[in-house]
Amino acid sequence: MVQRISLAHGEGGELTHNLIQEVFVKAFGHSDHIQHDSAFFRCDQQKLAVTTDSYVVKPIFFPGGNIGKLAITGTVNDLAVSGATPQYMTASFIIEEGLPLEDLKKIVESMASEAKAAQVHIVAGDTKVVEKGSVDQLYINTTGIGFVKEDNSLEPDRITEGDSIIISGTIGDHGIAVLSAREDLGLISNIESDCASLNQLIQELTDQIEGIRVMRDPTRGGLATTLVELCEDHHIHIEIDEEAVPVRNDVKGACDILGFDPLYMANEGKFIMIVNSQCAQKALEILHKHTFGKNAQTIGRVNSCHERTGKLLLKTPIGATRRLQRLSGLLLPRIC
Amino acid sequence: MVQRISLAHGEGGELTHNLIQEVFVKAFGHSDHIQHDSAFFRCDQQKLAVTTDSYVVKPIFFPGGNIGKLAITGTVNDLAVSGATPQYMTASFIIEEGLPLEDLKKIVESMASEAKAAQVHIVAGDTKVVEKGSVDQLYINTTGIGFVKEDNSLEPDRITEGDSIIISGTIGDHGIAVLSAREDLGLISNIESDCASLNQLIQELTDQIEGIRVMRDPTRGGLATTLVELCEDHHIHIEIDEEAVPVRNDVKGACDILGFDPLYMANEGKFIMIVNSQCAQKALEILHKHTFGKNAQTIGRVNSCHERTGKLLLKTPIGATRRLQRLSGLLLPRIC
Repeated sequence: MVQRISLAHGEGGELTHNLIQEVFVKAFGHSDHIQHDSAFFRCDQQKLAVTTDSYVVKPIFFPGGNIGKLAITGTVNDLAVSGATPQYMTASFIIEEGLPLEDLKKIVESMASEAKAAQVHIVAGDTKVVEKGSVDQLYINTTGIGFVKEDNSLEPDRITEGDSIIISGTIGDHGIAVLSAREDLGLISNIESDCASLNQLIQELTDQIEGIRVMRDPTRGGLATTLVELCEDHHIHIEIDEEAVPVRNDVKGACDILGFDPLYMANEGKFIMIVNSQCAQKALEILHKHTFGKNAQTIGRVNSCHERTGKLLLKTPIGATRRLQRLSGLLLPRIC
Repeated sequence: MVQRISLAHGEGGELTHNLIQEVFVKAFGHSDHIQHDSAFFRCDQQKLAVTTDSYVVKPIFFPGGNIGKLAITGTVNDLAVSGATPQYMTASFIIEEGLPLEDLKKIVESMASEAKAAQVHIVAGDTKVVEKGSVDQLYINTTGIGFVKEDNSLEPDRITEGDSIIISGTIGDHGIAVLSAREDLGLISNIESDCASLNQLIQELTDQIEGIRVMRDPTRGGLATTLVELCEDHHIHIEIDEEAVPVRNDVKGACDILGFDPLYMANEGKFIMIVNSQCAQKALEILHKHTFGKNAQTIGRVNSCHERTGKLLLKTPIGATRRLQRLSGLLLPRIC
């Protein structure tokens, strides 16, 4: 039987993980280089980070943003959570014949304005146009290059039992906003995508806090999948407290009605950090002063280290504990 | 009336030029940064070049290559003709649900092997899967980063009347090869795409030849469009001799039958150079020793410099001279 790519291969969960391992890592080698938010290389004495993402979000306009804004913030955030200062970006467009020029202009203008706000320079571009039906309106690739300070405070090797897990704000907003735009669901029409460039907030944190171990942005696959990956990559067990995870009431309501779990919904303006528990309070104070961090919460802790396999545990409101896996199968295709 | 994007906006000719100027340059600023094969930035003392391209070639397999090989060679060549040594590359995949896994594997493997041959490292990647009908099988973005030597011999400011125009080999092969795969035209089934990584050949040339002014790869829009751009960018007039331009007989025949002009057909393994005429002979000697340069020819000269607007002239076999413009309107969509 011919094995075929399914939508679930692109969800950021278990099948994506397998596809990357079995096809890309096998061919391109060295998995460290191509799996995480950014890859690193050296140029003279300077350490650089590079990351790439293709954005296929549907629809291309949604409450709180559009595909262009998302293509900037997503790539900026991938660099920022890697401890890099985003500097340069390329932007490549695949456009469907017939796209209104006005739509393209709006999208490009919001890219320019978001890039300016995030202080990154778009330095190279490419444009392809394909026949009607060969792409759905517009896809954008952005590739970002950032500089990494030698003394940037990330110290993944120092993750310790008892370290705090912090999320920078409410989860699930982006997923529900895109879904509401797609399905025209009246009940959830006030929810906006959280898509935002987090580099300046992250810069403040890394400048002022010593004990940040590692950061990640919980996009495709959501908070749970990202935490599972952290557990596996760093051979740790993490326990999070379901009640501590900030979720807007309307997002929670929409998820209940639609049968989604906010823990697996995509976010585009949030990051997770593992931080020395003694620095958690100070980190929260900095976060709470910032628009993009005002709902930040400590949601759990590192339970144990040096495990052969990582494990994510969820403490439920009734006090039970269950293990969470990465997203498996299909949730919401084309969320970013 | 709603203005809409047309296929011709993606052909690499007049309309692409206008779209870039009116939408992208307007929003992102500084046209030098985003128009040419690569953009440059500095990191410490090191000058770096970056370039991005999305590949949408149809079909994804064609004689002489596939979309994956093309995605490596195209980006390698963009860096190489800019005088940069390609070092790192990112690869981002947009996959249509249902694509046979075997096809994806073949493509990814040929990327790995071409990257190895060209000595570039694929350091970061991304995978998206979209519903059937939302992309045509597979599109790939590659973004390349190269190092630029301070003493690399390109000297565009020294273009002088009498400088030679050299093309590294026969033109039109890629265009006809893709077309033959698309239309299943029996008569032209022996023509293979020229897609190849030219960086090692170009390195040899820049190491050994002093008087290279500028190089370009004549992809979308073909030799004529690329030369028009050179004329406009450097305010020069160029005259080329139609009879000197190397075209394979079968490519010429296919073009005649199909009504195409080889001068506007895409190439994926060729470059043009403007070189001090005193160095042209030596450049040709180096080229002729190399597989990818064995059919190199001097095809024309710089007629005059410091012109307000550039102009490309073609001397026809009967001795007449006519002006060539960049590709206008629709020739062959999705050629790269």
